[in-house]
Amino acid sequence: MIYMDNSATSPTLEEIFKEMQPYYEKKFGNASTLYKMGLEAKKAIEKSRKQVANLINAEPQEIIFTSGGTESDNWAIKGIALKELKKATSENKRNHIITSQIEHPAVLESCKFLETLGFEITYLPVYTNGIIKIEDLEKAIKKETILITIMNSNNEIGTIQPTKEIGKIANKYNITFHSDAVQSIGKIPVDVKKDNIDLLSISSHKIYGPKGIGALFIKKGTKLEKFMHGGGQENGKRSGTENIPAIVGFGKACEIAKRDLKQNMEHNQEIRDQLTKKILTRIPESFVNGDLVKRLPNNIHFRFSGIEGEALILRLEEKGLCAATGSACSSEKLEASHVLTALGIDPALAHGSLRLSIGIENSIDEVDEIVNDIDEVVKTLRNMSPLWDSINNEYIELDESVFTE
Amino acid sequence: MIYMDNSATSPTLEEIFKEMQPYYEKKFGNASTLYKMGLEAKKAIEKSRKQVANLINAEPQEIIFTSGGTESDNWAIKGIALKELKKATSENKRNHIITSQIEHPAVLESCKFLETLGFEITYLPVYTNGIIKIEDLEKAIKKETILITIMNSNNEIGTIQPTKEIGKIANKYNITFHSDAVQSIGKIPVDVKKDNIDLLSISSHKIYGPKGIGALFIKKGTKLEKFMHGGGQENGKRSGTENIPAIVGFGKACEIAKRDLKQNMEHNQEIRDQLTKKILTRIPESFVNGDLVKRLPNNIHFRFSGIEGEALILRLEEKGLCAATGSACSSEKLEASHVLTALGIDPALAHGSLRLSIGIENSIDEVDEIVNDIDEVVKTLRNMSPLWDSINNEYIELDESVFTE
Repeated sequence: MIYMDNSATSPTLEEIFKEMQPYYEKKFGNASTLYKMGLEAKKAIEKSRKQVANLINAEPQEIIFTSGGTESDNWAIKGIALKELKKATSENKRNHIITSQIEHPAVLESCKFLETLGFEITYLPVYTNGIIKIEDLEKAIKKETILITIMNSNNEIGTIQPTKEIGKIANKYNITFHSDAVQSIGKIPVDVKKDNIDLLSISSHKIYGPKGIGALFIKKGTKLEKFMHGGGQENGKRSGTENIPAIVGFGKACEIAKRDLKQNMEHNQEIRDQLTKKILTRIPESFVNGDLVKRLPNNIHFRFSGIEGEALILRLEEKGLCAATGSACSSEKLEASHVLTALGIDPALAHGSLRLSIGIENSIDEVDEIVNDIDEVVKTLRNMSPLWDSINNEYIELDESVFTE
Repeated sequence: MIYMDNSATSPTLEEIFKEMQPYYEKKFGNASTLYKMGLEAKKAIEKSRKQVANLINAEPQEIIFTSGGTESDNWAIKGIALKELKKATSENKRNHIITSQIEHPAVLESCKFLETLGFEITYLPVYTNGIIKIEDLEKAIKKETILITIMNSNNEIGTIQPTKEIGKIANKYNITFHSDAVQSIGKIPVDVKKDNIDLLSISSHKIYGPKGIGALFIKKGTKLEKFMHGGGQENGKRSGTENIPAIVGFGKACEIAKRDLKQNMEHNQEIRDQLTKKILTRIPESFVNGDLVKRLPNNIHFRFSGIEGEALILRLEEKGLCAATGSACSSEKLEASHVLTALGIDPALAHGSLRLSIGIENSIDEVDEIVNDIDEVVKTLRNMSPLWDSINNEYIELDESVFTE
């Protein structure tokens, strides 16, 4: 089996699991207790906090552990918004948030929820390359704007947003800037200081750590309402008994991600570029969704006219390849991906998409097998497709220079 | 070492950990993916959902997995409240919630947060026995009441609330009834159908399952706002990538908790009653906080005049006993426990409290050693205490009949 769905989730590395294991049966103490086992747990948490902070160039006290990326996104957005809602008088309330049309559902659905509470949301367009325009962002800012929430990189098509430029704009207008970097950490450098980021969502299970754990980076001085109220864990900022084994695993995953970043980027990009070249040159009417260069090194997202993504995935599985058609989150929905729709792709064509997300366990030697499998399956499906007959059968012209950047 | 802090957290049983393990490195797939590994993950989740439902006599589809008890409490309370806040006109908005003074901080702090959004909260008194009065509850109900949130049993003093009677009242007035049963499951029978419960919070790590996982029982037909917005996992009710290993472990923990409930209750109660008799008869000026009978079989909560709880815990640890003075959540705060204050206990005396929470790994043979240790430590601390000299040194009169109920 070849697993190329690392953007959905990744296995927990043995090296990471081994660090977690003692905290289940033996060192199981509650970190809030007064005796030695509690203090040991607390120490383990603080070690992990440093490891996580190091990966994104934050201070340890700016890292607050959550149950994952979805909680981090919900917290960041609702935390800023509900702080405004609490203000007693309507005169000084501000209620405007700027986001993009291709955010993760955790961001988009949180924004939609806030609309029902009277907030106004601007959803910036991303054009055919899947990237926002800075001038659109600047134009959208009003005196009521309290938050800009734009992802670092997209979870479906892998396009990278101009985070540094967004951070500059946010800073210029004194607006809080949140970024979902769940797909970015461990794949490309992420630096909250350089990029002027106030709030950053990250998650463990995309970088070979365990599921059920993530963090919200909260820049010192950034004020937001609590999301999890209760016993006052995490320095009073996020309540709930600390999930020690998972926190330990996440810390180790971040340490490894930082250590191996450069070599993993090269490894991923080499495989990605080979896959891209070979697929686009071999399969007619095949396209890449989103910018070919400004994308994560481990993500390539194809579109094949005349076929249906779900059938593609199931047939590829028969051949031993695990891949996705959209994101894991959207795989069960029948409507076309909101991301591809935002790129202006016809919903009928959007359905014929394939996301390959590369991981450390993949190898360049797998490329030819994968390309053969995809080519065969696409051919088979097109032969069965009434849509295909009506599509003009042309090869795409490839500009080889884009791969060298 | 004797561990008697099972209300803070419990070790993950080997039997449970073994079920979880394959889902880290091998069967690591995202449950929302289309290929076989995803389907296997989905199946594992549904198996666990049944195991959890069985423990509380719910239907599987009424169980929604969360990151733990704190999230479940936050969701239940804010989910009911924010649904009202969304209503467009102020005329039909209802804004009153009834809770008790001794709820878990996850409930109390969520309620306090809602006060800042314009909600009105009634905090019912609990008297010296730590139990609410049904007549107080019925008197507090108004036409604006949207929610009664009263815990099944208390996390510090272990007193059990009249849940069945509360359920009847809630039903009579057509008000949603939420109960935090984190400390109750696996310790006493919990039956959502018999008790007319609409929303029930439960957690895994108090019943020998892993940390970072819990559930909210949502009775079919109960409507509440989402807490985690996003990718639409958990049948659209709770977003976030499913934490499969933890879900599997929680399911197994519930299965075992149901299987062993009767024998664990007897085991715990025997140890508890021996500890109680021996401590109260041997140590002067020792008291039990909260009702002596209507309490969890695994919880006993003493108060020793003239000493300080933190010193007590640290000296008991030197003797090899892990115990708590308040709850784990409140251990780091300097103020007296809100629970003991609600019982009318003088804050200076409340500080001299000791919670022993018994688990399956404890044995009746440990009782004498524990009693000796506590006796010695209490004596030592009192000898050093200026407060102790001023306290009248009397033995409590014990009514033996209370132990036979």
